[in-house]
Amino acid sequence: MNDRPKAVVLLSGGLDSATALAIAREEGFVCYALSVDYDQRHRAELDAARRVATALGALDHRTVSIGLGTIGGSALTDPAIAVPEQPTDGIPGTYVPARNTLLLALALGHAEVIDAADIFVGVNAVDYSGYPDCRPAFIAKFQELAAVATKAGVEGRGARIHAPLIDLTKADIIRCGSALGVDFGATVSCYQADAQGKACGVCDSCRLRAEGFRVAGFPDPTRYR
Amino acid sequence: MNDRPKAVVLLSGGLDSATALAIAREEGFVCYALSVDYDQRHRAELDAARRVATALGALDHRTVSIGLGTIGGSALTDPAIAVPEQPTDGIPGTYVPARNTLLLALALGHAEVIDAADIFVGVNAVDYSGYPDCRPAFIAKFQELAAVATKAGVEGRGARIHAPLIDLTKADIIRCGSALGVDFGATVSCYQADAQGKACGVCDSCRLRAEGFRVAGFPDPTRYR
Repeated sequence: MNDRPKAVVLLSGGLDSATALAIAREEGFVCYALSVDYDQRHRAELDAARRVATALGALDHRTVSIGLGTIGGSALTDPAIAVPEQPTDGIPGTYVPARNTLLLALALGHAEVIDAADIFVGVNAVDYSGYPDCRPAFIAKFQELAAVATKAGVEGRGARIHAPLIDLTKADIIRCGSALGVDFGATVSCYQADAQGKACGVCDSCRLRAEGFRVAGFPDPTRYR
Repeated sequence: MNDRPKAVVLLSGGLDSATALAIAREEGFVCYALSVDYDQRHRAELDAARRVATALGALDHRTVSIGLGTIGGSALTDPAIAVPEQPTDGIPGTYVPARNTLLLALALGHAEVIDAADIFVGVNAVDYSGYPDCRPAFIAKFQELAAVATKAGVEGRGARIHAPLIDLTKADIIRCGSALGVDFGATVSCYQADAQGKACGVCDSCRLRAEGFRVAGFPDPTRYR
C-alpha cells in the first residue's frame, strides 16, 4: 500500500506548472495532474500537459472543459481579440477574468473527491504579466476561502494551496525545474502556439520564457515557428 | 441609452435563483442571467432556466459548460451515485464539491467582461441541505476574494455579491418570488427531474420545495411524475 500523500497539481502544459509538478513529486506527493480546456487559443498546451504528466510520473491526469469562450473578454478566449505582440503597460489583453479562481476551484473540488489535502499551482508574481490572480494576496485569500467552501474544509481537512514558484524569477524556475528533470522542450508557453506547439516568439509569454533561459544561461529548447 | 446598472444573476432554473433574478430586476438592475451545464443529472433545470430568464425579462442569458463529470464525486455528477430519497444526517450525497466557488468564479469573470459591478446568487442557509458553500461565511469570504482576484477588483471596481435569500425560509422565498411575479410552475428544483422537468417528489430538493409551498399556504405548481 502506498501511503504517500496525494496532491492535485494544476498543469497547463507550460514551463511553470511543469516545474510545480516536479516539485510536488520531489516533496513526496503522489500527483494527480489536472488540466483545463477553457477554450484557450493555445490548446496545444494541453497536448504538452499530457506529455509532461507522463514524463514526470503523475499517477493520474485529467482534463476538464470549461466553456469560457461563451464569456470571452480575453485574447485567449475570444478569437476576435489579438494577442499583443509588443510589451504593454498594465495588464495585457491576454488576462482571462477570474481564470485562476476557476482553476483553483476545480482543483479544490477534485482534491475533495479524491481525498487529497494538497494542491499545487505554478503561479508566479515576479517575471509575469501582472495578472492579479497570480499574486500572493490572491493565493492567501483563496486559502481562506477553501476553509469555508467545502465539506472537507469545514471538517478541518481543507486543502493546502502550495504556490512554490510565486517568489522565484523565471531563471530560477528554469534552474529548479531543470535540476528536477523537467524536459522544457516538451512544454508549451506560447499564447498563440500552433497546432504542433510551435511558438510565436513575440507574445508576452514567449518573451518571459526566452529571457528566463537567457538569464539562466541555459539553451532555449523552445520550438519556434 | 439605458443607464440602469448591470447585474450577473446565477440562474439554475430552480425556485431560489428565479426569485433572486426577480429581486435583482425589482432592484433596478439590467439582468444578465448565467446558467451552468456542469454535467448535472437534472439537466432539465437548464431548460427551466431559459424559460425563467425570458419570463423575467433578462436582457441576456447564456449557459456555460463545465465538465464536472470528469471529476465526479457527487450524486449529481456521477450517474453511479444514487440521489438519496430519504432524509440523511449531515451533508447528503448530492453535495457537489466546490460547486458554488466555481459558479461564483464564472459569474465574477462574466461580470468583469460585461463591466457589471453586481452579482446575484440564490443561495439559502435556512431550508437547505447543509452545503457549506451556501452559508454566509462562504459568501463573505468569496466577496473578499473577489477584491483581489480580478483586474476590476484590484482597481476598486470589484463585484458585490448579493445573496438576498440567504436568511429566508423556503416559505418566505416563495412568498417573495410570488409577489414579484415568478411563475414557479416554470422552475425545476428536483435533483432527478426527467427530461420533461417532471419531479420525483422524494429527493431533498423536492422535499424542501414541497414543504415551502405547504408552509406558505400556496398551491404547489410542481409537475410530479
